[in-house]
Amino acid sequence: MRQVIFGGANSLDNYLARPDGRVDWLRWNDGAAVIMKSVWSTIDTVIMGRKTYEAARSHAKPDGKRKRASANPYPGVTSYVFSRTLPDEAGVTIIRDDVVPFVRRLKEAPGKDICLMGGGELARPLFDAGLIDRVGLNIHPVLLGAGVPVFHAMSRQIDLELEECRPIGDGCVYVNYRVVHV
Amino acid sequence: MRQVIFGGANSLDNYLARPDGRVDWLRWNDGAAVIMKSVWSTIDTVIMGRKTYEAARSHAKPDGKRKRASANPYPGVTSYVFSRTLPDEAGVTIIRDDVVPFVRRLKEAPGKDICLMGGGELARPLFDAGLIDRVGLNIHPVLLGAGVPVFHAMSRQIDLELEECRPIGDGCVYVNYRVVHV
Repeated sequence: MRQVIFGGANSLDNYLARPDGRVDWLRWNDGAAVIMKSVWSTIDTVIMGRKTYEAARSHAKPDGKRKRASANPYPGVTSYVFSRTLPDEAGVTIIRDDVVPFVRRLKEAPGKDICLMGGGELARPLFDAGLIDRVGLNIHPVLLGAGVPVFHAMSRQIDLELEECRPIGDGCVYVNYRVVHV
Repeated sequence: MRQVIFGGANSLDNYLARPDGRVDWLRWNDGAAVIMKSVWSTIDTVIMGRKTYEAARSHAKPDGKRKRASANPYPGVTSYVFSRTLPDEAGVTIIRDDVVPFVRRLKEAPGKDICLMGGGELARPLFDAGLIDRVGLNIHPVLLGAGVPVFHAMSRQIDLELEECRPIGDGCVYVNYRVVHV
């Protein structure tokens, strides 16, 4: 079955962005690029919540240009955005159904793996339902002190198995876990 | 000057204990023992808040016996407990002064390094005041979902420099950082 991968870059105090959504503290380097390329080769689908979608749409590219506001922020993969309020948009599919049954069906459909982008608000019900299979983090050497949490409170403990752990440059640590399904 | 070391074992979602204080999820192994022995050799003083003190006093030893309720939970080192409500107790020194000026004076006094035990409630004002010099964590392969946070909200960002990162067995990852003082 397709796997759902959750993760991204975080601060040591487990924020994925500042309170206003800024990610100016991120360190992008060859180590992170190699990992992202590897992850990207295993997936064909991205799922995200509205806030992550809107943040991804507005992110400046490294050259300072902004992406087109209405395009799929992750070109080349199928992008699903969970929102009950967003209108239909070109390039992505807006999902107004409940996230858990939708992702369960998505995992049973044929395809490559599925990447859950962004925040823990969407991850929480999916962890609770046992639908997340892997967690990968690029832990940055900073305590932001406040921000958007990677992990939200959950109703149960999730056990993990460490598969990989290594420094990837600029003080960043890559950790990769398999979720132990009970 | 003496350094203040903050850290301990945490879950990947950055809790140091369950909501009721239990640490039954901790994995104790030779890797952790070697690190603890090394840290212990560099310090002669422990500082902690009331909750950590009370939790440490009541912790069961591996053989199931409980430590004496009134003794210093960290024998062999000088233990300071910050509390405005605890009565004087044998084996430890109860500090009713503000934590920041007290720790500033402590760092200027002669001695080995100082270990800040337990939770982020005491760490927060000390990070804010620039008095913490090192952060070491034994990141456990588990998402607890809820608990006592290692890091609380802070008024400013704390930059870190990674000094060490390695798996230490049983899925645990040891990370050790130097705080960048501004």
